[in-house]
Amino acid sequence: MLTYDLQDVPGPIYLALSSCIKEDITCGRLHAGEHLPSKRALARNNGVSTITVQNAYDQLVSEGYVVAQERRGYFVAALGTVPQVRPPQSHLVIPERTEKTIFDFSANHTEVEQFPFSVWAKLTREMLTQHKEEMLQVSPCGGVAVLRQALAGHLASFRGMAVDPAQIIVGAGTEYLYGLLIQLLGRNHVYGIETPGYRKLQQIYEHQGVRCTCADMDEQGVRVAALETAGAEIAHICPNHHFPTGITMPISRRYELLAWANQSPVRYIIEDDYDSEFRLKGRPLPTLQSIDASGRVIYMNTFSKSLTSSIRISYMVLPVTLAKRFYQELSFYACTVPILEQYTLAAFIRRGHFERHINRMRRHYGRKREQVLAIIRAQLPSCICRVLENDSGLHFLLELRTEVPDQLIQHRLAAQGIRIHSLEDYQLTEQPVSQHRFLLNYSNLDLDKLPQALQALHEAIRKE
Amino acid sequence: MLTYDLQDVPGPIYLALSSCIKEDITCGRLHAGEHLPSKRALARNNGVSTITVQNAYDQLVSEGYVVAQERRGYFVAALGTVPQVRPPQSHLVIPERTEKTIFDFSANHTEVEQFPFSVWAKLTREMLTQHKEEMLQVSPCGGVAVLRQALAGHLASFRGMAVDPAQIIVGAGTEYLYGLLIQLLGRNHVYGIETPGYRKLQQIYEHQGVRCTCADMDEQGVRVAALETAGAEIAHICPNHHFPTGITMPISRRYELLAWANQSPVRYIIEDDYDSEFRLKGRPLPTLQSIDASGRVIYMNTFSKSLTSSIRISYMVLPVTLAKRFYQELSFYACTVPILEQYTLAAFIRRGHFERHINRMRRHYGRKREQVLAIIRAQLPSCICRVLENDSGLHFLLELRTEVPDQLIQHRLAAQGIRIHSLEDYQLTEQPVSQHRFLLNYSNLDLDKLPQALQALHEAIRKE
Repeated sequence: MLTYDLQDVPGPIYLALSSCIKEDITCGRLHAGEHLPSKRALARNNGVSTITVQNAYDQLVSEGYVVAQERRGYFVAALGTVPQVRPPQSHLVIPERTEKTIFDFSANHTEVEQFPFSVWAKLTREMLTQHKEEMLQVSPCGGVAVLRQALAGHLASFRGMAVDPAQIIVGAGTEYLYGLLIQLLGRNHVYGIETPGYRKLQQIYEHQGVRCTCADMDEQGVRVAALETAGAEIAHICPNHHFPTGITMPISRRYELLAWANQSPVRYIIEDDYDSEFRLKGRPLPTLQSIDASGRVIYMNTFSKSLTSSIRISYMVLPVTLAKRFYQELSFYACTVPILEQYTLAAFIRRGHFERHINRMRRHYGRKREQVLAIIRAQLPSCICRVLENDSGLHFLLELRTEVPDQLIQHRLAAQGIRIHSLEDYQLTEQPVSQHRFLLNYSNLDLDKLPQALQALHEAIRKE
Repeated sequence: MLTYDLQDVPGPIYLALSSCIKEDITCGRLHAGEHLPSKRALARNNGVSTITVQNAYDQLVSEGYVVAQERRGYFVAALGTVPQVRPPQSHLVIPERTEKTIFDFSANHTEVEQFPFSVWAKLTREMLTQHKEEMLQVSPCGGVAVLRQALAGHLASFRGMAVDPAQIIVGAGTEYLYGLLIQLLGRNHVYGIETPGYRKLQQIYEHQGVRCTCADMDEQGVRVAALETAGAEIAHICPNHHFPTGITMPISRRYELLAWANQSPVRYIIEDDYDSEFRLKGRPLPTLQSIDASGRVIYMNTFSKSLTSSIRISYMVLPVTLAKRFYQELSFYACTVPILEQYTLAAFIRRGHFERHINRMRRHYGRKREQVLAIIRAQLPSCICRVLENDSGLHFLLELRTEVPDQLIQHRLAAQGIRIHSLEDYQLTEQPVSQHRFLLNYSNLDLDKLPQALQALHEAIRKE
């Protein structure tokens, strides 16, 4: 007779009893087909009620360890080979960046303290308090109407773009939207990206299983002939402030690109406008999207740079034909952005907070840029250092006169805990000769440490 | 000489001036290579300052419409063919479900009013007020530690699963996580899903560009031989409460499946545990994950059902080897869930709100289920209607005795605005003969209208 110690077990006794029997079954003490004791007998033997045994047997039956046969009682089920479950495997360590970096010329974080958190928090509270109804809705696949309208308004006033809110698709980050776009445009196409460029883009396309090719650039941006040679069908580019070169594509190249896209119905341009908000002088350049007469441009932007990366909201503007296809083919996907963030961002834009924030940040970054440039001038003689800049975005390039290879310069600095990226690091295809151009991203740069870091850079470029 | 009306223009005059010149260039009134008037001449002619003209020319140069030549002045750039931008195209209408449904037997929404919104809102406010620092962090790719710990704790107490928090990956919905999993497991594998089953799953795999095959089921769940025949390598299944059949896979079939997965290193099982929280009697069945000795099971769950679909948080538990691979290969992806929601959910779980909510909902749905069953018994004689149920989840099947084909029954009801789905509708492969089994999802069912809807169903199954 099965006898178990059911005294002082935590939780319901029937569960303890069923666990004990389960254990006997899985480790082979009870065999398939074996007749289990009657409820009354088992109850008496273990000092529990028949109800407890009944519940334990029910549980075992519902889990499939035991089979009940009418008027005959309970039998051990045939389980086949039961693998032994080992205790949880070796402790898993999430890898962290352990390099000790004391200064980073190329970190692209924005300054956390600049995010207007109190306004954002106030609006969030207001949404929770006054818009409970809306908070419990299911979001339409492209995002809630009020946010898409606010985005269309922002694009009109800030970028001169005439966009139907229904063309806008909201998602949890541009990386997510790239995946959605691949599903919309098709996996059989060749996606062309710029080199030098953003290596993550290449990783994403490769992990998404589509062919990704690189097109090189000249001083006007990506070369159309290079897209042609590379066999690209979808050109994913940053025409307004290219990363890392900082190039702003002039209008003639823009028209050339649009003409390229027009030559085949499968060609599209993805216009990544990730930091256009921070153009420092004049008005931002008109987007490719706004001069596109044939619906070949997909405009994409994010709030990770312009607000904070802790909220995950990006959006894209689809040409009308693609938007129609999106609603036909992909509207079964749920929107990935929570309702609360969508309404909060909509209010943040509609009430002018976003525009004020951008203006404030532009002034802030403008001042910071001047300070950075002044420190560079003071530290590095102009005969060895030239700043390549075009008044937009949050980064520029330092071109240094040296005969030391870029990699050695980086190596020397790394030994002192200073990270710097050369333009070479962003070459996605062959490694070219050192151009001695280095990225300086000032969005999160520590001004106090900059002179010392530049001093180290100065020493590192000396031949010895 | 270029003459423009710059009186009463909105915004800065230099922008209006540059727009006018741009317009003249793009529509061909000014030709490539043409020498533009000097700054002073143009200023005098239009009654503006030379600074204004300078700014306008600078803007045009930076956009590439105009080229500046040292000591020679400004020239119209060569733009190539300029396509004419038409006004925004035809109005885009986001399609909406327009069918007039007055009653839906199969709607799977949860009751919005059951979501403990005030507790959620209170915790959200608290996070904003007391955890500002955390709110501005960048989330680790798998989710913030405090949420992963809370989830591991929940899985331990609620599902008996021993899980290292580092095995948990948080994402904006299961659909997003499927895409991530495909990138982790590989695109060359064959993904097997259950038929009858969830059609959206098939759509997702197909749109993600991987081969998707269907395996049929018997009364114990998916047939292992069917997975074998279909050539499936990754089995994506709902063993704990299958949709739509409601089948709970018994333990013997579970071991059989694990043995199948063990036969090849590329085989994995995705265990979709989407509504396990709502098992109404006894304890939930042990998950496949918890009896998996060899790290072949990926466990997946969501808060869309158990809380509300307006927050988008799902998670998966990866076997240790896959988790290691995830951190090596895919950690460049940003987490898709906003920090605020992650911290709020973590607090919601850790302070016991989630468990209380589940218990409350179980009682609520238990009562509702009894009411639904009572109404069915009152409306449909037991000789024509049998309820197939297994005490878990939020749906069951009605098996009707009739000779009317399922499609005709649906058609007859649809004419009265009543939606009902037969099991046939979830057959993902060939259409079998009518089994006269219909889905009844009671999570959001209107009890007041149910008697009338059942009456209509009763009439619809009568031959005539």
